Amino acid sequence: METNTILFSMSLLVVLGLAGSDPDPLQDYCVADTKKATKENFYCNGVPCINPNNVESTHFATSALSKPGKISIMFGFNVTLTTIFNLPGLNTQGLTMARIDIDANSLVPPHSHPRASEVAILLKGSLLVGFIDTSNHLFTQNLQPGDCFVFPKGLIHFLYNTDSNEQALVVSGLSSQNPGVQMASPAAFGTKQNMPDEVFQINDQDVTRIRTNLGG
Amino acid sequence: METNTILFSMSLLVVLGLAGSDPDPLQDYCVADTKKATKENFYCNGVPCINPNNVESTHFATSALSKPGKISIMFGFNVTLTTIFNLPGLNTQGLTMARIDIDANSLVPPHSHPRASEVAILLKGSLLVGFIDTSNHLFTQNLQPGDCFVFPKGLIHFLYNTDSNEQALVVSGLSSQNPGVQMASPAAFGTKQNMPDEVFQINDQDVTRIRTNLGG
Amino acid sequence: METNTILFSMSLLVVLGLAGSDPDPLQDYCVADTKKATKENFYCNGVPCINPNNVESTHFATSALSKPGKISIMFGFNVTLTTIFNLPGLNTQGLTMARIDIDANSLVPPHSHPRASEVAILLKGSLLVGFIDTSNHLFTQNLQPGDCFVFPKGLIHFLYNTDSNEQALVVSGLSSQNPGVQMASPAAFGTKQNMPDEVFQINDQDVTRIRTNLGG
Amino acid sequence: METNTILFSMSLLVVLGLAGSDPDPLQDYCVADTKKATKENFYCNGVPCINPNNVESTHFATSALSKPGKISIMFGFNVTLTTIFNLPGLNTQGLTMARIDIDANSLVPPHSHPRASEVAILLKGSLLVGFIDTSNHLFTQNLQPGDCFVFPKGLIHFLYNTDSNEQALVVSGLSSQNPGVQMASPAAFGTKQNMPDEVFQINDQDVTRIRTNLGG
Amino acid sequence: METNTILFSMSLLVVLGLAGSDPDPLQDYCVADTKKATKENFYCNGVPCINPNNVESTHFATSALSKPGKISIMFGFNVTLTTIFNLPGLNTQGLTMARIDIDANSLVPPHSHPRASEVAILLKGSLLVGFIDTSNHLFTQNLQPGDCFVFPKGLIHFLYNTDSNEQALVVSGLSSQNPGVQMASPAAFGTKQNMPDEVFQINDQDVTRIRTNLGG
Amino acid sequence: METNTILFSMSLLVVLGLAGSDPDPLQDYCVADTKKATKENFYCNGVPCINPNNVESTHFATSALSKPGKISIMFGFNVTLTTIFNLPGLNTQGLTMARIDIDANSLVPPHSHPRASEVAILLKGSLLVGFIDTSNHLFTQNLQPGDCFVFPKGLIHFLYNTDSNEQALVVSGLSSQNPGVQMASPAAFGTKQNMPDEVFQINDQDVTRIRTNLGG
Repeated sequence: METNTILFSMSLLVVLGLAGSDPDPLQDYCVADTKKATKENFYCNGVPCINPNNVESTHFATSALSKPGKISIMFGFNVTLTTIFNLPGLNTQGLTMARIDIDANSLVPPHSHPRASEVAILLKGSLLVGFIDTSNHLFTQNLQPGDCFVFPKGLIHFLYNTDSNEQALVVSGLSSQNPGVQMASPAAFGTKQNMPDEVFQINDQDVTRIRTNLGG
Repeated sequence: METNTILFSMSLLVVLGLAGSDPDPLQDYCVADTKKATKENFYCNGVPCINPNNVESTHFATSALSKPGKISIMFGFNVTLTTIFNLPGLNTQGLTMARIDIDANSLVPPHSHPRASEVAILLKGSLLVGFIDTSNHLFTQNLQPGDCFVFPKGLIHFLYNTDSNEQALVVSGLSSQNPGVQMASPAAFGTKQNMPDEVFQINDQDVTRIRTNLGG
Repeated sequence: METNTILFSMSLLVVLGLAGSDPDPLQDYCVADTKKATKENFYCNGVPCINPNNVESTHFATSALSKPGKISIMFGFNVTLTTIFNLPGLNTQGLTMARIDIDANSLVPPHSHPRASEVAILLKGSLLVGFIDTSNHLFTQNLQPGDCFVFPKGLIHFLYNTDSNEQALVVSGLSSQNPGVQMASPAAFGTKQNMPDEVFQINDQDVTRIRTNLGG
Repeated sequence: METNTILFSMSLLVVLGLAGSDPDPLQDYCVADTKKATKENFYCNGVPCINPNNVESTHFATSALSKPGKISIMFGFNVTLTTIFNLPGLNTQGLTMARIDIDANSLVPPHSHPRASEVAILLKGSLLVGFIDTSNHLFTQNLQPGDCFVFPKGLIHFLYNTDSNEQALVVSGLSSQNPGVQMASPAAFGTKQNMPDEVFQINDQDVTRIRTNLGG
Repeated sequence: METNTILFSMSLLVVLGLAGSDPDPLQDYCVADTKKATKENFYCNGVPCINPNNVESTHFATSALSKPGKISIMFGFNVTLTTIFNLPGLNTQGLTMARIDIDANSLVPPHSHPRASEVAILLKGSLLVGFIDTSNHLFTQNLQPGDCFVFPKGLIHFLYNTDSNEQALVVSGLSSQNPGVQMASPAAFGTKQNMPDEVFQINDQDVTRIRTNLGG
Repeated sequence: METNTILFSMSLLVVLGLAGSDPDPLQDYCVADTKKATKENFYCNGVPCINPNNVESTHFATSALSKPGKISIMFGFNVTLTTIFNLPGLNTQGLTMARIDIDANSLVPPHSHPRASEVAILLKGSLLVGFIDTSNHLFTQNLQPGDCFVFPKGLIHFLYNTDSNEQALVVSGLSSQNPGVQMASPAAFGTKQNMPDEVFQINDQDVTRIRTNLGG
């Protein structure tokens, strides 16, 4: 696995990426009118909705999660989310679903969702999952198919497929229609513009030293 | 399928019972201290938490959804939820997960969640799903494995297994740690105490007449 | 009382009907601009507001509740709500008011508000009121003029005028500018499109059987 | 009318007084356990609830608003609220109701509710009502029986009975279980401890001068 | 200090003035598009945002608080706020900052923020600060440089510079992007339209009498 | 600067550290009763409050930010927060304040607040500040004294003192009483327990390669 691909894939991921304890709905549904943004240049906190008279059953259904997204050889995992683009009826409902496919011995690297808690259920494979709290305590668990794990809101977490043969499949619920995702290290090192040198102070030696100093 | 069993099973379901756009967390996690309620008789909006120094990884993991709950012959379906009882780390995180097993040609009858939106993903089988909005519009959709469907917050909805042989399996995310469930008709007819006769005015003839009047 | 009228009236009701713990206001007031929707086809979570320079005192006042709505002979009750249409200053304020007129020995049948709690005060007449919780417990109370009753958020409830001569008059506060209303049984039986036969499984016999099985 | 009584009565009012867009409920109901505070010295954001197994219908009902509170001759009005003390089932439901009795030609002086919007309905009498926005615009309206008026969240407002003979009766919904009340001028002048002299700078002459300078 | 100037300045203040526990963001940022309102006459709860592709670093930065606003001789203080106009990136982020400059022996008179709590830090000078709760209890404190003080949400509070030579400088955080401000007495006496005479009942004598009756 | 000290200091920071769009208050104030937790082992979402009759002005005041915290030579910066421990009146008010002291040419390394937005004002010195959005766009700005900058909720950000002689001083408002802090890289590398080797896959070479691949 080469980490430069992680960054690239993460960028793709976050294009979908998206919100926490969303504002409560003020009507039964507010089916997303995504064309208002692209064609009429209208943006707001969330998105406007289509005329309720034009709402159809299909606005509440999607096959977006029915197949795994493409997993590149170098990358090793793929995350697909229901969003207001592939599932417009999701708008204002305060949650979303994700499917996560992870190659054998591959990692969804440490990342956080700035606007959501997550509950994951493992459908296939064997996972080592964990999160780090704001006191730097690490909580990890090995999951078997059918097991669930809670990643508390906004905290850095990861999922690692411990099986050396089988791909793992996870379905997650997230407590926002647009949870967003931010990689821990790549976020610091892999921005589209270069990070100022002064900020890039944690060099190779530092990483080694950090681990040593912490008893690693 | 005999509907009297529905009522019984629903009662069991709601013993787990369950909340919408939950209040935001005020700390990383607040692992549920369910003994405070049962032993010290302490109840509040949600539940108190254990000493954060005693929190362990296992509080965030559960196997509760790894097997289907028992489906009675008469009943035809079973819903199992992650709750603060089987997954204490869920407390204050604002969402929960459910697995729903439905026998061939069986129905999860019309019901609503007073405190949550729901996004369901069909893992196995063939489903007819639908919901009714507050203008009495019905939205239905046939789902194949991998398909998702949104049930907007608080609205009456149902899931029907259209396959005459295979059991269906659904995983759902719900936007509250305690969504609650209330059956449409059974709620009116099947309370633990008898509904006053005056309220029980929709008799057999009425049902027929209603459908006739509506062109049924 | 003929129940087919209930359905019709309910449909009327819900056209007005509309939300729970509404998002907090971001300014003093946001007087509803309902023409933006109808003429410029603009819809969002809630509604846009008019230019604050054009706001007048009349936007905060309405006589909509000063008279009872029309009560059809067959129907037996009428609900009138303040809404953003008859009271534009209500927009973003997170509550609404209703007047409910109920004929002698008539019923506001079991229904729920997907987005609001309700506190009712009886002004005239004698009422039997009640709600059903998600454990199917029934809570009922007889009210005399001046008495108040709480219907918790999202739960099915009803109001019955126990007086055989006098019309009853109720004023209610609801904790959303658009609480919405969904009838329990009619919702299942009386949608504008026919409910799929598979879902319409609770037949006449079932209802009888349910009550018998529950000791009725 | 002597204003010193206002202050006294206001103090009584606010002892009941208590919140805006309250946190959403996490269960069907959380009936207030007010003894926990008084006897076990337990206080939190809101109040704890009693064991749900001990909840009864009477917890959701009250006659507190059935009679006017005592209107002193000097005072001229009385406000009675449903609170978690007289209506424990109100707890966590996000709203409350009030009855306001106002003597002929008497005033409920300018005040604000720090945690609630209000919609008032006039049941008897003739009222002049108004509020002041944060740009110091004054919005007033004359109300006849059946008329409603919106007082936006947190803004200073007043109600004046313009009838010289009849007492007025108002019922209000407020968007918090504990809206709180704070008198405009009395708050500045009538605290239980004396306001520091430096703060008490708006003297008699000032008031006259203010009005003159503003064209009064 | 002449109070008529207070009113004038307050009006200026509130033109900036603007909200409490704001709705949560549904995306990383929603940079305010203030031209939509002024040119296209579009208003909503909060403001729409610009195309995210056009967002630049400067949208998140402002020098608005770098200099004191103009303090008139008669007025004695000035408040400058970051707003969506001088700091568009503030939109949807749920807080704002203020700098407050107060002349020697001058007062920021009793006022409330209908939509925000405030924490003030004194940077220069000596302050007497205080607030009044809804039970009319007065809480005051003398602050030295570096001291902080909490003004709870929606309650009337004041700041008085007790130093007879030095100007005081305060920086405050407020828990809304648009907290709003409403003066206690000036709000009652100094609206742009004249307050009805009936409401202006607290005359000069009353003020004296109030203080006397309260032991002043 | 040696990074191992960063980790140590961060741990200290987060002991204080801790929340976003906090639940709205249900009373004027809820002064934190921190002894309930330590002595009576009571924990909940947030903290309980003391008897309101025992509340004093000092509960709303603190000198905690009046002096810089100790800046170790190796560390280069210090963050001091108002918390419910040093400022109990902060509880339920939905915001907090921080002072940040940064040595010449020193860095507050990339970190995020899982529960808060932040607006910083630079009081002394010259800063380079920036944040990274979920699309990996980097937004940076140079600040002079008096300048403010917005760090959107939950996003990774940093502050660097570009002056080679002068210490910098920043005051920040944060939109939660307990915002929490999580270091980007240290969070991944410096947990109290060792991160599993599989997760520690971003080695020294990777970091170099990442930057090269991204044109660095």
